Amino acid sequence: MKKIIILSLFLCLSCQQAKTITESQEATFGIVIHGGAGTILRANMTSETEAAYRKVLAEAIQVGHSILKNGGSSQEAVEKTIHVMENSPLFNAGKGAVLTADETIELDASFMHGATLDAGAISGVKTIKHPISAAIKVMEDSPHVMLSGAGADAFAASQGLEIVEPEYFLTERRINSLKRVKEAEAKEKKISSLEKEYVSQQRYGTVGCVALDLEGNLAAGTSTGGMTNKKWNRIGDAPIIGAGTYANNATCAISATGWGEFFIRSVVAHDISALMEYKGLSIQEAAHTVIHDKVGSLGGDGGVVGIDHRGNVAMEMNTPGMYRAHMDAVGSLNVKIYKDE
Amino acid sequence: MKKIIILSLFLCLSCQQAKTITESQEATFGIVIHGGAGTILRANMTSETEAAYRKVLAEAIQVGHSILKNGGSSQEAVEKTIHVMENSPLFNAGKGAVLTADETIELDASFMHGATLDAGAISGVKTIKHPISAAIKVMEDSPHVMLSGAGADAFAASQGLEIVEPEYFLTERRINSLKRVKEAEAKEKKISSLEKEYVSQQRYGTVGCVALDLEGNLAAGTSTGGMTNKKWNRIGDAPIIGAGTYANNATCAISATGWGEFFIRSVVAHDISALMEYKGLSIQEAAHTVIHDKVGSLGGDGGVVGIDHRGNVAMEMNTPGMYRAHMDAVGSLNVKIYKDE
Repeated sequence: MKKIIILSLFLCLSCQQAKTITESQEATFGIVIHGGAGTILRANMTSETEAAYRKVLAEAIQVGHSILKNGGSSQEAVEKTIHVMENSPLFNAGKGAVLTADETIELDASFMHGATLDAGAISGVKTIKHPISAAIKVMEDSPHVMLSGAGADAFAASQGLEIVEPEYFLTERRINSLKRVKEAEAKEKKISSLEKEYVSQQRYGTVGCVALDLEGNLAAGTSTGGMTNKKWNRIGDAPIIGAGTYANNATCAISATGWGEFFIRSVVAHDISALMEYKGLSIQEAAHTVIHDKVGSLGGDGGVVGIDHRGNVAMEMNTPGMYRAHMDAVGSLNVKIYKDE
Repeated sequence: MKKIIILSLFLCLSCQQAKTITESQEATFGIVIHGGAGTILRANMTSETEAAYRKVLAEAIQVGHSILKNGGSSQEAVEKTIHVMENSPLFNAGKGAVLTADETIELDASFMHGATLDAGAISGVKTIKHPISAAIKVMEDSPHVMLSGAGADAFAASQGLEIVEPEYFLTERRINSLKRVKEAEAKEKKISSLEKEYVSQQRYGTVGCVALDLEGNLAAGTSTGGMTNKKWNRIGDAPIIGAGTYANNATCAISATGWGEFFIRSVVAHDISALMEYKGLSIQEAAHTVIHDKVGSLGGDGGVVGIDHRGNVAMEMNTPGMYRAHMDAVGSLNVKIYKDE
């Protein structure tokens, strides 16, 4: 027994030492965001719309970058960056979220911390202004990881989070989207083919952020309104730890966006981490494998953003576009929309 | 210590031998079930109660085994086996499920098919007699993977599944459990310590089944009432694909039971599959690693049952007991409760 204790202490000290060396070699930080993936084509985009997206992506990532640069945590960077995108009606998260078949808004979000593997998630909430903050509250101030529906709304209110009327989230654009999808649905018979069509038209907009802070801690968060015309209190991949969101200091932080059903079945975010941990793939190789060989081969599409514990970045998609941006420790800003950029 | 090493080596060699024999056999099948893991101690169990559990476990697994033996699918075997346990008030699934803090019943279930990676899940339903069948219906007859709350109940009803009054699920035993937990809660101040105590007392009962059929197809299913006194529409690991349930013909089928929050954070079921796929571990090694080194090191506890594509089986736990049973192609029945059996 004594031997075991001595061995454990030795291992513990070695770990500490290794950590210090790694940290001194690699004091870097970085942040990556996405604003959804899908059929985003130059032909369908006015220069004004394109400029508006690029402007909000730049604003959002600079908020998180500034936090990280000043020694703030990856958790705070992810939360505050996602707030900017939840506030923008351009994205399908917070204000501007898509409508359900019942013409309501049901928001999903999740957050995971790479150092502790602590996680929080909410699904189907209707009154929480910043769903990402509710996910973090679940992680920090409840004994649970995932809350849903009216219970999650009540928990957030009890914790003093900002509560708004459901109408706050509604936008003319999303009301019109639902109308168009319902008209198309009325004409169609097979829900599956309809689904495929409207999903590919209406999906883009989920937002997400991954960050590495100066302490070497990774964090990932995702926030969404889900899928236009969704029914039966559908839950997609965004609030599912392992599917839409995963963070582990040993590997990477991942936030996904895409056809959620395929991302759940492929356990996308955790699979990227597992390929790095167990097979030694780089974050780019792992993200490419999962998006193209796993999700793609099932017939799904979408994308991920990721950052590893050394600041290496992946922005991978099998769609024509993904709203995305990256900033590294140097501060160079990299905003992209189309796949071929 | 020496004895332990010799014993381990012996066990290891036996395992290798068993594996080789199994691998040389081509068409095989098998089924494994659990009825929950937790503080299950001989000291707290009457011989009548123990006999009752062993009887239902044997009845349940024989239903699935008979289907498999006659060439039926692993999907059907998993569904029909879980029906038996959902019907039994002994387990925390279907009839006999635990109560929420609001004295209601909220049931969760999920199913995954190893050949297609198709999956379905429902959470927080109140009127569906067989939640596992609702999860399968979501997979087969909706464009979604996961439905929740009243929407999931409505979907199941629209699909002709058997609907019951919420009172159907209530049992005196679970009403008393909730009372005791609430009394303890009223005395406690810190929810976290309370949580730890009542979780370890009240958790056992989730049911699950994994099967390999003669076609070589794996399937996994899990069904539960969740955690006594759960609040805010909490969702545990049972309905989360990748956490409580995962199946992939390339690796294994897994169903988990335990402290759901830790199982979500550890993405338990998918992690076992990933260790097999990417690191070449056997199902026993992978299950041991995830339950002890991953879940255990975070402070969580519980267990899993699993079967791989060659019929090798894992029944792993870090709790004093797990209700479980296994039947192989030969038909030998193996029912166990305590860890040291």
